[in-house]
Amino acid sequence: MSARPAPDLRLYLVTDAAQCASRGRTVLETVTAAVDAGVTFVQLRAKDAEGGAFLQEVLDVCAAVGDRVPVIVNDRVDVFLAARDLGAHVAGVHVGQRDLPASVVRRLIGDDAFLGLSASTPEEIAAAEAEGACDHLGIGTVRATATKTDAPTGLGTDGVAALAARTDLPAVAIGGITAHDLPALAAGGLAGAAVVSAICLAEDPAAATRTLRAAWNEGARA
Amino acid sequence: MSARPAPDLRLYLVTDAAQCASRGRTVLETVTAAVDAGVTFVQLRAKDAEGGAFLQEVLDVCAAVGDRVPVIVNDRVDVFLAARDLGAHVAGVHVGQRDLPASVVRRLIGDDAFLGLSASTPEEIAAAEAEGACDHLGIGTVRATATKTDAPTGLGTDGVAALAARTDLPAVAIGGITAHDLPALAAGGLAGAAVVSAICLAEDPAAATRTLRAAWNEGARA
Repeated sequence: MSARPAPDLRLYLVTDAAQCASRGRTVLETVTAAVDAGVTFVQLRAKDAEGGAFLQEVLDVCAAVGDRVPVIVNDRVDVFLAARDLGAHVAGVHVGQRDLPASVVRRLIGDDAFLGLSASTPEEIAAAEAEGACDHLGIGTVRATATKTDAPTGLGTDGVAALAARTDLPAVAIGGITAHDLPALAAGGLAGAAVVSAICLAEDPAAATRTLRAAWNEGARA
Repeated sequence: MSARPAPDLRLYLVTDAAQCASRGRTVLETVTAAVDAGVTFVQLRAKDAEGGAFLQEVLDVCAAVGDRVPVIVNDRVDVFLAARDLGAHVAGVHVGQRDLPASVVRRLIGDDAFLGLSASTPEEIAAAEAEGACDHLGIGTVRATATKTDAPTGLGTDGVAALAARTDLPAVAIGGITAHDLPALAAGGLAGAAVVSAICLAEDPAAATRTLRAAWNEGARA
């Protein structure tokens, strides 16, 4: 796995097209503003999109972001493979426990791509570490949220930090996170915080990104 | 593309888990009964399933069907690749116009796999033929149906046969087809008929399959 440099996961944006649309913005506009303002990692998620539309979104975002920050694809390994086949600078895939198994996904995407895996229990974290397929974990939910209806109820910042302490894999907290939670997560040993609505639903995604980065730095300095 | 033998598309089953469940059967039970009774080709479709569950269904069906008839995967090229990676005897993929582009899918699945493509207009058929990526077409809808909400309204057996006559690619009619339609489709030059509810919603899928095969033969002899 030495082919992959460790990514900067500190402020990790997960997209939600409906939330962006409710603010009158496309996913592309939201991601571009957020990356310009300091987001360090982007996961494109489009659970309800058809493959062709999702592929086009991945191509458009990758073209706009270039190599400034990694852009990865949620769930649809085939969309990742298609985007890479078409020359896009797409960095990897994130899968959940109900998606394709991480060990298989690793073989399909190769050793140069990032692979993130959602985990929310000690058993899932131990299994991910034993399997050795993924590069980092998404641990949550921090707070109960309407974004992912299959996620468990909130673990709180302390609960997520305690789970993250069980593994040497870099871990990103996810689920209902606001700027208010970031100092505790940064101080608690997380590699980063993944946000959805804190940026996608923000009136000004760039300003929201700057606020989130400052809140993270507050905890990282502590 | 010489790596692929021409498949027998005469009676082509497309699965619908909800329809099977409404008759108290799993997809696996339905497919097994239908293949035993004479279905010649199977497409597993699970638009709402998560990747892990769909992969398991593909593995289970492929194990049960073996090499008796080809089993292909709707839309999820990654599920096909994962099943093949795990050693399943899975034969290919079927994509629609809104899924990943057929030319890209062909590169991802290789030259040994079948690739079917949905087409419902002269323009889509001409584009598929010009692209040269797919092996056969699914042309429809024959009759308006509730199975595919994005499909156009019914073309009738004559309309589908007229579209099929525009291409040298083998074409399967799809959409609301019952045994009543099969003689006209077989006589009209179609390579086969794809059915969903005629088998998945049947009280007895084996008996329904035998009836459908007999109806096809009636038109093929004419």
